[in-house]
Amino acid sequence: MTSTKITNVGILNVTGYVGAETARLLYNHPYVRIVGVTGRSMAGKRLPEVFPHLFALDLPVTETLPEGCDIVFSALPHAAAAETLAPIIQAGIPVVDGSADFRLQDVPVYEATYKTTHPAPALVAQSVFGLPELHRDAIRITKLAAGPGCHSTGVILALAPLFAAGLIEHSVIADTKTGLSGAGRAFALPVHFSEADENVSPYGLDGHRHVPEMLQELTFVRGRKTEPVTVTFTPHYIPMTRGILSTCYADALVGVSIDRVEIMQMYRDFYADAPFVRVSDAPPSTKAVAGTNFCVVHPSVNLQTGKIVVTSALDNLGKGAAGAMVQCMNLMRGYDEDAGLRTLGLFP
Amino acid sequence: MTSTKITNVGILNVTGYVGAETARLLYNHPYVRIVGVTGRSMAGKRLPEVFPHLFALDLPVTETLPEGCDIVFSALPHAAAAETLAPIIQAGIPVVDGSADFRLQDVPVYEATYKTTHPAPALVAQSVFGLPELHRDAIRITKLAAGPGCHSTGVILALAPLFAAGLIEHSVIADTKTGLSGAGRAFALPVHFSEADENVSPYGLDGHRHVPEMLQELTFVRGRKTEPVTVTFTPHYIPMTRGILSTCYADALVGVSIDRVEIMQMYRDFYADAPFVRVSDAPPSTKAVAGTNFCVVHPSVNLQTGKIVVTSALDNLGKGAAGAMVQCMNLMRGYDEDAGLRTLGLFP
Amino acid sequence: MTSTKITNVGILNVTGYVGAETARLLYNHPYVRIVGVTGRSMAGKRLPEVFPHLFALDLPVTETLPEGCDIVFSALPHAAAAETLAPIIQAGIPVVDGSADFRLQDVPVYEATYKTTHPAPALVAQSVFGLPELHRDAIRITKLAAGPGCHSTGVILALAPLFAAGLIEHSVIADTKTGLSGAGRAFALPVHFSEADENVSPYGLDGHRHVPEMLQELTFVRGRKTEPVTVTFTPHYIPMTRGILSTCYADALVGVSIDRVEIMQMYRDFYADAPFVRVSDAPPSTKAVAGTNFCVVHPSVNLQTGKIVVTSALDNLGKGAAGAMVQCMNLMRGYDEDAGLRTLGLFP
Amino acid sequence: MTSTKITNVGILNVTGYVGAETARLLYNHPYVRIVGVTGRSMAGKRLPEVFPHLFALDLPVTETLPEGCDIVFSALPHAAAAETLAPIIQAGIPVVDGSADFRLQDVPVYEATYKTTHPAPALVAQSVFGLPELHRDAIRITKLAAGPGCHSTGVILALAPLFAAGLIEHSVIADTKTGLSGAGRAFALPVHFSEADENVSPYGLDGHRHVPEMLQELTFVRGRKTEPVTVTFTPHYIPMTRGILSTCYADALVGVSIDRVEIMQMYRDFYADAPFVRVSDAPPSTKAVAGTNFCVVHPSVNLQTGKIVVTSALDNLGKGAAGAMVQCMNLMRGYDEDAGLRTLGLFP
Repeated sequence: MTSTKITNVGILNVTGYVGAETARLLYNHPYVRIVGVTGRSMAGKRLPEVFPHLFALDLPVTETLPEGCDIVFSALPHAAAAETLAPIIQAGIPVVDGSADFRLQDVPVYEATYKTTHPAPALVAQSVFGLPELHRDAIRITKLAAGPGCHSTGVILALAPLFAAGLIEHSVIADTKTGLSGAGRAFALPVHFSEADENVSPYGLDGHRHVPEMLQELTFVRGRKTEPVTVTFTPHYIPMTRGILSTCYADALVGVSIDRVEIMQMYRDFYADAPFVRVSDAPPSTKAVAGTNFCVVHPSVNLQTGKIVVTSALDNLGKGAAGAMVQCMNLMRGYDEDAGLRTLGLFP
Repeated sequence: MTSTKITNVGILNVTGYVGAETARLLYNHPYVRIVGVTGRSMAGKRLPEVFPHLFALDLPVTETLPEGCDIVFSALPHAAAAETLAPIIQAGIPVVDGSADFRLQDVPVYEATYKTTHPAPALVAQSVFGLPELHRDAIRITKLAAGPGCHSTGVILALAPLFAAGLIEHSVIADTKTGLSGAGRAFALPVHFSEADENVSPYGLDGHRHVPEMLQELTFVRGRKTEPVTVTFTPHYIPMTRGILSTCYADALVGVSIDRVEIMQMYRDFYADAPFVRVSDAPPSTKAVAGTNFCVVHPSVNLQTGKIVVTSALDNLGKGAAGAMVQCMNLMRGYDEDAGLRTLGLFP
Repeated sequence: MTSTKITNVGILNVTGYVGAETARLLYNHPYVRIVGVTGRSMAGKRLPEVFPHLFALDLPVTETLPEGCDIVFSALPHAAAAETLAPIIQAGIPVVDGSADFRLQDVPVYEATYKTTHPAPALVAQSVFGLPELHRDAIRITKLAAGPGCHSTGVILALAPLFAAGLIEHSVIADTKTGLSGAGRAFALPVHFSEADENVSPYGLDGHRHVPEMLQELTFVRGRKTEPVTVTFTPHYIPMTRGILSTCYADALVGVSIDRVEIMQMYRDFYADAPFVRVSDAPPSTKAVAGTNFCVVHPSVNLQTGKIVVTSALDNLGKGAAGAMVQCMNLMRGYDEDAGLRTLGLFP
Repeated sequence: MTSTKITNVGILNVTGYVGAETARLLYNHPYVRIVGVTGRSMAGKRLPEVFPHLFALDLPVTETLPEGCDIVFSALPHAAAAETLAPIIQAGIPVVDGSADFRLQDVPVYEATYKTTHPAPALVAQSVFGLPELHRDAIRITKLAAGPGCHSTGVILALAPLFAAGLIEHSVIADTKTGLSGAGRAFALPVHFSEADENVSPYGLDGHRHVPEMLQELTFVRGRKTEPVTVTFTPHYIPMTRGILSTCYADALVGVSIDRVEIMQMYRDFYADAPFVRVSDAPPSTKAVAGTNFCVVHPSVNLQTGKIVVTSALDNLGKGAAGAMVQCMNLMRGYDEDAGLRTLGLFP
């Protein structure tokens, strides 16, 4: 039986887009009361001054959270997150972290990827990768869920059934197209309107930080084998605010043949119990899931070449960030997995 | 005391943007069950085939509504609406109509504006203009609410307090900037992506159909006087999907002086009981209200010229259409005025 | 007879959008050789590193211009422009300045508007307002042309014929919709992609710096009279990169009546010799003039209210900035007025 | 020595985007006079009525071309093109065709791809694939150049050096992101503004018509071998008007190793004589080439996986269509290859 008890929530770093989206979602959550929101440079302001769309959430932005939080959401950047969360975790307060700090179980990989010393390596072992589609039971009982990266979610959900079934080669390609809210509210030329508008460009060609978590999770679903999983990952900036479309390419193992009907059925089976993954007959589009926690996955096979092509669409701030975090909280607090997350896409 | 009884709703012409938005809003309404949706060319399909974002509303699109609707929403175009609704109204079923058919109390004005014969002129007298901010009590007891035009809502809400206070000249200017979803799902060159993208242009310079309803309602709040209210109205197409920003210009009557502080207070007083009008100190922006039923109004005075300048922002499919219709239903059914409409803006 | 002699040009502050557009236009000018380009923070780089689209203009960005410029274009911001240009002007080198420093003949008005001390007030009297449609002969013989503000150009060209004919009241309204390149390459929240995309908002409600130059020029064409010209000016940010659409409202003087045919003819006559103003029967759109030096003007009369409504469209970086500067240079150097500026709009 | 003789040009089907862009480019071509433009449904109108941005090209749109064309450009759709062009070609008039009719040397492949009977199969052998980077000498002497598909150009230019060097496996992946002008001016839901805006989606998953020409040309540069070239091609609609970004993935042959420095040099060598291909150290972006005939190619190697990743950017209406056609004409008429095509990108 699901809980309906009220949870008092604190949000760390509400002043970025992930923090604000977390607040927006929790405002409408039937069992949540937001009791505090923090933000460094904006401390002292009211939340609606920082984000007018949150006018009804008239809370002060403070430097630290008040006492009495039943759970803490963090939208702090990596390193700052672990540093700020460590005492909270040690005090036994459940945490949902949106940063990379607790996603990677391998601390040296984390440190090489983020070029920093992990501020709380001893806590990593307690964390669960916050993708309920792979770790639902573990999330239910954890006190530290680590929300996945936005690209990672789209790519992992697109490829997990194939790796789980042991049908594909270890080396895959992931080509993602992302809206620019993924780059956050901080200023930079690639997200300056006049530069980004009417423009598409690849980035991260020297390596993107989400790759290690893709490898960790795809390896998790596949199991360890001789050949390690590799992902050739190329993200692209797209002139829109929200959404990630992931196009993933995989080769069936030698001797394996899979057609479109079979792959569709395999995906439907794999995600039968996942309320937020929709396996679709039609190619996905990001706009259909704008503002939601849904990920639409469309597995297919190229009819000319036999290559497996799986496309997925999600809202990078929804299922790609804040939505997934709320979904984790629902599991951690015993609520319906979709409590507060039933909104349909804002289309058109 | 507000009702929590379930209402069975039918939606006529769900296959346009207003119909789809009505369905999206009602899907999350705590007291509504959608029992039928119609659409002419799409009849026979399932709703998610027509609009993938409504995947969870897996209803058949039919030609007519089933029996048992407690209330009917119509998103039919003008003339078709009155024709289809007439027997429903005559059967005593409450109706919220999104077309222009029941907005104008003066049938000859309607017929001249829409260049058609009114299909049900006898029913016009029963209708109430569906703007709760001006007609809340009448809407509570009507069985026929006529949702206002999207431009009209932005302009009327921006100017009503001034006309009500009798402070301004009869002749005003309204310059609106509208997202392209207002033009609907029907194809046309001005809403063809490559033509509309990176483009701004005025339209309706020969007269726009929303002007008569602006005049009717602004005259209603002002009261009849020698000089009839006139609105010089210029709408503009803007390269975005949702939102209307209305910029209204008015002259204080000779001998009247009003400053920024006074006008702000006057607006706050006027809208003190309106849950969906936010009188704001800061200039409004459409994105802050995307997907919502809110209208942000910012009254001001040009410091150089003394001209009164009032700007307002709303979502043309929300408060400008489907949201207002749901708000009307809430009043007609005795629900909290904001039931199902508490969502905050999808920003960014 | 027009000149075809080569002009050696230097560009100050090529690293902003106006500077870059000036370089782009001059690259294709048949009689121009760009001999130097400056930029403070970017000094030491090659121009294509700063702006990849200028790859063929492989010049070093330097701190100061080389010797030997026949004419200097400045895209420096106000105050910095006058300070840097003063010695150049005093050395007798012709200058086209894109800043506000030499637009306003009234130095105290400049100083109040820009909240700064004018760095070279003694040079102001030498300058000519760089709008050839009003000052062609003066520009031909000046050594200091001051390119108008982008909003000013759209508004002045829309209203000049009416003021020149003495047909309208002194008080007009100008409501402009501008692409975001007008805000330059400097970072700010209103031009951060995720904030600006899908958004419209008014700004400058406390007064905009372009108003004094509108007043100066509209007064120039009208002549001084008892009632000073006033412009209630409201600019709006629009989610696109280039273009300004100006919607201007004026009242015919008491006793004057003007219809659509007459106003169209008056405008055609007024601009008969202006190669870059197109008086159009149809409402203008910004996209049709993207990348060009054209301004499309559409004079009209509201059929319901009799209000005069003139709309104009231009590219804010073209006729609104760099294009106008090149047009001025053409006149100053004796070239065809449209040399290097004959490109048609990049549509779609 | 290059020619400067004037060429009289006729354009078939000027009323689509490729036809209009051809007209725009030729208007500024130093050696071209446009003597006639056709368009079926628009016949009888003036060109500026159909496309206001072409206001200076005040020609009548006719049903057939006038006598006296030295060369004919066709922007007709496939099948209609061959049918209309056959008598022109047979009359010995040089033709540049933008359709697919003369791209594929294998008529059965054409007929299977386009599901139609080729209207003039006997003429196919005379045609040259209009990609000067691969066929410059043949284009110089042909009387029938077939402009490549827009996706094909981006993909072929990205991969040709690798296939020519014999360094990669036969099976490659091409993932393209295209602006919506590529879909033309005809109405359809995926290019309806409100559906396309803020949206990314894959299409053509059942096979895209440009694949056979990619295979033909990549096989041409590689030479025939046991394993036929295959391209797993996935195009995506992107919310912008112009531009294609192609991301191509290839595997080095077993035993071959190539690093980033080597691949860059190989590409620079391969395109040393190609004035419109820029091999770039930095990732390309479509906006930097908007309105131009340039294609920017960035060859790279994924540092984690060793996969070869080549990205390219072009304007689908420029180098992807009308620009390439003008480039072909320049070669066919003995002009400088870049005559009329030296414009830099319209950035920002």
